[in-house]
Amino acid sequence: MSVDMAIKVLDQSLGKIVLIKLKGGKVIRGSLQGFDQHMNLSLDTAEEVSEDGKSNALGTLIVRGDNIIMISPPPS
Amino acid sequence: MSVDMAIKVLDQSLGKIVLIKLKGGKVIRGSLQGFDQHMNLSLDTAEEVSEDGKSNALGTLIVRGDNIIMISPPPS
Amino acid sequence: MSVDMAIKVLDQSLGKIVLIKLKGGKVIRGSLQGFDQHMNLSLDTAEEVSEDGKSNALGTLIVRGDNIIMISPPPS
Amino acid sequence: MSVDMAIKVLDQSLGKIVLIKLKGGKVIRGSLQGFDQHMNLSLDTAEEVSEDGKSNALGTLIVRGDNIIMISPPPS
Amino acid sequence: MSVDMAIKVLDQSLGKIVLIKLKGGKVIRGSLQGFDQHMNLSLDTAEEVSEDGKSNALGTLIVRGDNIIMISPPPS
Amino acid sequence: MSVDMAIKVLDQSLGKIVLIKLKGGKVIRGSLQGFDQHMNLSLDTAEEVSEDGKSNALGTLIVRGDNIIMISPPPS
Amino acid sequence: MSVDMAIKVLDQSLGKIVLIKLKGGKVIRGSLQGFDQHMNLSLDTAEEVSEDGKSNALGTLIVRGDNIIMISPPPS
Repeated sequence: MSVDMAIKVLDQSLGKIVLIKLKGGKVIRGSLQGFDQHMNLSLDTAEEVSEDGKSNALGTLIVRGDNIIMISPPPS
Repeated sequence: MSVDMAIKVLDQSLGKIVLIKLKGGKVIRGSLQGFDQHMNLSLDTAEEVSEDGKSNALGTLIVRGDNIIMISPPPS
Repeated sequence: MSVDMAIKVLDQSLGKIVLIKLKGGKVIRGSLQGFDQHMNLSLDTAEEVSEDGKSNALGTLIVRGDNIIMISPPPS
Repeated sequence: MSVDMAIKVLDQSLGKIVLIKLKGGKVIRGSLQGFDQHMNLSLDTAEEVSEDGKSNALGTLIVRGDNIIMISPPPS
Repeated sequence: MSVDMAIKVLDQSLGKIVLIKLKGGKVIRGSLQGFDQHMNLSLDTAEEVSEDGKSNALGTLIVRGDNIIMISPPPS
Repeated sequence: MSVDMAIKVLDQSLGKIVLIKLKGGKVIRGSLQGFDQHMNLSLDTAEEVSEDGKSNALGTLIVRGDNIIMISPPPS
Repeated sequence: MSVDMAIKVLDQSLGKIVLIKLKGGKVIRGSLQGFDQHMNLSLDTAEEVSEDGKSNALGTLIVRGDNIIMISPPPS
């Protein structure tokens, strides 16, 4: 209920692997390096995960927040 | 008619199971852990519910508010 | 021509049954419990109405305003 | 070229029948009862007009402005 | 490069016939009567022009600016 | 990294031929006469370029910035 | 977690080759010359990369930020 709920969860996920579902169906996994108030994310060792479980290495990435549906932080 | 109608209903649902319908047809169920003024939601023990009633565990999730059509708080 | 036209109409509909048409074709009916300046609505005893006239009970609902095409307040 | 061009035209149409074309193809006709700066409209004795000229009574309506493509005010 | 580039061009087109291409493919032609900072346009003797060159009279119109792709002012 | 990067590039292109790709696939070519902070463009001797290389003269045009994907300024 | 995360990563990529994925599926590669706070990008020696690995030279480009899904800065 705090204004900075998303920021707190993202902050706790820095340096950890997050899973990101994008509009249009793409799924990206990578190590969260940074984010901003638009939910723009910076990822390291990112990879695109396809439905059959295969992955395609993307390296370092900036993902624009307005394409994001859901972010799964790592299990705590 | 209050400006913070959604905030009040979400606040009363903290820690309880909510059902969320997203644009594109996805349905998510989970325990509401937090939210902000954009209706971004933080869920625990979330699962995606498919039309045939099966569910797919997603764990902890941040859902961006601009993908949400409807939120069903728990029955009071 | 007043800035708060929608607010006035919604305010007069509080506690009454409204019919809501959403982008994508969904139609929702329910008792209006609250709303805010984004046209986010809180409904009670809501149900989804399908084209063949059948309805599917949804209980309490928050509907995000940006999904709404039209709202029919109750006949006065 | 005035900032309130739309407001002036809508203001002159109050109490008169307007025709509204919505995104997605719906056409609505009704008596304009009010509007606001988002072009949200309040209509009375509204009806949905289909392409074959038939109409379906909708009664009183709030139409969200962001769904509107065009508004035809009554001939002057 | 001026902030009010569009306003200047529209201002010079007042009272003249403009051609407007809308998202979704509709083409509208009419006499420009007014506009505002959202590029909302007010047209007189408007008509919808179909691809085969036929036109369908629409009379007076308000066109919401966010539906507009391009406006052709009259040849100078 | 300057806030007015786009403005600088557009400013240097004034009076020159630019190529514009729009959402939905349209490609427009014309002489850039003006622009504003929304990337609304004013073009002269504009033409729509189809995939087979043919072009269709459009004359003077205002293009709304929110339809634009890419702008190619002239080779320097 | 800094507000200017994207700006920092883009700033470090100035003069280097970046890969950009756009809504709708286009992929653009080019030398990053500038950017602004909307993630509008200015590229040099840009080319469109198709799925079969072929590329189509585009020269200098302004890409509007709201079309961008992801940006891959160069490997560090």
